[in-house]
Amino acid sequence: MFSNRISDVPKSFIREILKVSADPSIISFAGGLPNRDLFPVENIQTATNNVFRIAGPDVLQYSNSEGYKGLRENIAKRYKSFYGIDIPSSNILITNGSQQGLDLLGKIFLNEGDSVAIEEPGYLGAIQAFGVYKANFLPVPVSEGGMDVCTLEAVLADNNPKLIYTVPNFQNPSGITYTNENREKVAKTLKGTGIYLVEDNPYAELRFTGSNKKSFMEFLPEQTILLGTVSKTIVPSFRLGWIVAPDNVMEKLLIAKQAADLHTNYFCQRIVDQFLNDYSLDDHIETIKALYMSKKETMIDAIKQHFPKEITFTDPEGGMFLWVTLPVGVSSLDLFDLAIKQNVAFVPGDPFYTNRTDVNTFRLNYTNTDEQRIRKGIKLLAECIREII
Amino acid sequence: MFSNRISDVPKSFIREILKVSADPSIISFAGGLPNRDLFPVENIQTATNNVFRIAGPDVLQYSNSEGYKGLRENIAKRYKSFYGIDIPSSNILITNGSQQGLDLLGKIFLNEGDSVAIEEPGYLGAIQAFGVYKANFLPVPVSEGGMDVCTLEAVLADNNPKLIYTVPNFQNPSGITYTNENREKVAKTLKGTGIYLVEDNPYAELRFTGSNKKSFMEFLPEQTILLGTVSKTIVPSFRLGWIVAPDNVMEKLLIAKQAADLHTNYFCQRIVDQFLNDYSLDDHIETIKALYMSKKETMIDAIKQHFPKEITFTDPEGGMFLWVTLPVGVSSLDLFDLAIKQNVAFVPGDPFYTNRTDVNTFRLNYTNTDEQRIRKGIKLLAECIREII
Repeated sequence: MFSNRISDVPKSFIREILKVSADPSIISFAGGLPNRDLFPVENIQTATNNVFRIAGPDVLQYSNSEGYKGLRENIAKRYKSFYGIDIPSSNILITNGSQQGLDLLGKIFLNEGDSVAIEEPGYLGAIQAFGVYKANFLPVPVSEGGMDVCTLEAVLADNNPKLIYTVPNFQNPSGITYTNENREKVAKTLKGTGIYLVEDNPYAELRFTGSNKKSFMEFLPEQTILLGTVSKTIVPSFRLGWIVAPDNVMEKLLIAKQAADLHTNYFCQRIVDQFLNDYSLDDHIETIKALYMSKKETMIDAIKQHFPKEITFTDPEGGMFLWVTLPVGVSSLDLFDLAIKQNVAFVPGDPFYTNRTDVNTFRLNYTNTDEQRIRKGIKLLAECIREII
Repeated sequence: MFSNRISDVPKSFIREILKVSADPSIISFAGGLPNRDLFPVENIQTATNNVFRIAGPDVLQYSNSEGYKGLRENIAKRYKSFYGIDIPSSNILITNGSQQGLDLLGKIFLNEGDSVAIEEPGYLGAIQAFGVYKANFLPVPVSEGGMDVCTLEAVLADNNPKLIYTVPNFQNPSGITYTNENREKVAKTLKGTGIYLVEDNPYAELRFTGSNKKSFMEFLPEQTILLGTVSKTIVPSFRLGWIVAPDNVMEKLLIAKQAADLHTNYFCQRIVDQFLNDYSLDDHIETIKALYMSKKETMIDAIKQHFPKEITFTDPEGGMFLWVTLPVGVSSLDLFDLAIKQNVAFVPGDPFYTNRTDVNTFRLNYTNTDEQRIRKGIKLLAECIREII
């Protein structure tokens, strides 16, 4: 009865885990939620009332599929100020979060069985979105410093992916950031192949320490597609993101966007635009970074204090997640079963892999738990780890 | 480079027409926009500030894929009060307008080449959405009173469509409404076939005269999927619609929704819910109906006065459109070229057909032009018609 593309998709593993973790008695490092206490709720409310005052009933009318011009220009300005790169606002399409960017890319590029190279571990939202279009995934390992270029070369020699999907800054799930040198090598490997590199970049502005890295757009401008979002810096509930793509890709994206939902919520596009005009995003982001950095340091301290020495973990310079590796052969799913009995939750590594199960890795989120509970949760988790290894 | 599903889709014809028609010197009957003067902008603003007061920062956080519980319950209540039917709120999925409902249905049901029976003429947004999934369209004519059941029976005898798509109330583009008898016959024809009937229903509440018709849900409950939207009754820019579907379909829709964009804008779900709690939707709809009916009557009067007698047209009891049929062999595309030189625009029939071009029909919208310009535009159009026939 159903299409092949949907019949094979299992019930979302992560949804089940998040349901279990929603119980307030559980110390949850599982979700990927920004911290609600930092939402600029008063400024958003003021911006909203300003939009009503300025635009009146027009803000409630249908709008164009590309997105609000003012917002697209604000996004272009931000690329200029943050990365120093020139993005014409006409190459920016507003989407329902970057998740819709992934869906539209799947829709316009992928026939059943087309290959997509993807980081291993990789962002599960991308695995879901491309999976629905029956992508053939080609995993390329990432570790401290970035993508394994030797494996990438081997993958390209054997296959012909249409896309390569990356989160090069504070990657979800691992927290890893590619060095500039690694980016340059990856770009050199891809140059002239006709493969589009997707740089999904929700976290780059949340850098606590170290220096900003360059965008792939600098190394590989003709083949880079950027995904962006306001979900991690301003507001998630609006579902507001964007794609930056070359003209020929933009033309197809626009057709797909129109068929998908005509356009993204125009009212909220205007509110975010107004917020960006009236307030300092930099000041707001400084507040987020200060809190997240403190929580991250608390978690790292607690891990160093309590985890057995053979357990390795990433220590990200920004973003929302860190990544723990158990000894070879120890299943993080088994650890999850133990931990949940102690009222501690995390996301086992499995959904971040396209062809491996019962892996020995897992993801910890530190943005949404207070520091006392971070210490307590990590201590409890350490006890479970000792029990299982 | 691109997927097959997107490579074959032509540049949107209607987008081009709407671009031409956007010039304010043009009297445009082309668009399908609600009248902006009727948007309940003050009440929406008050509801928005109430949501900030009641929900605070939580209204800016990520939410669930199904949609806001309160809103789904309000929608269920409305089905009860308007149609007298019981819809469990758990069978309602909130989408980005009903257009996303169409996209999700295409995604979960259609493999390349799967058949979809569709009204002829039919809603072009549905043709676009299912077209992207490479549907094989089986057109079934509609005329005054509803769907041609003989053709429907013949189509079912020869083919095995997965879906049949209908807009049974004040259809877009024709303004036609199915009688209760016709609905019963269509339902009887489909009963037990396993084919899902999609009842897309944006206009039913905008009835000027006559009595409400029954939903297909009454005649064919196991096989009916309902699409709804607030775009024509409250606010279009929020992109807020919903699907009502049986449990097994809902499960697949939810997976597809999550992969598509995680969830629909939660902030605006809360605003619409608050608006429905705080204000009378019935009162608001009365205002819309009074204005639209008056505009419709003005257009019908002008058509009767100016159009040659051999031109036929529908006289809808509600909704936003009427449908004109020129003599056989006269192309409405040719008429469009003439009319646009006289600064009058409409939508030629072509994009509402899946396998015919240069048709002799066209769509007129009456909701978004003042009555003086309606009279003037119809008079000019009549002159163009006399010139072409």
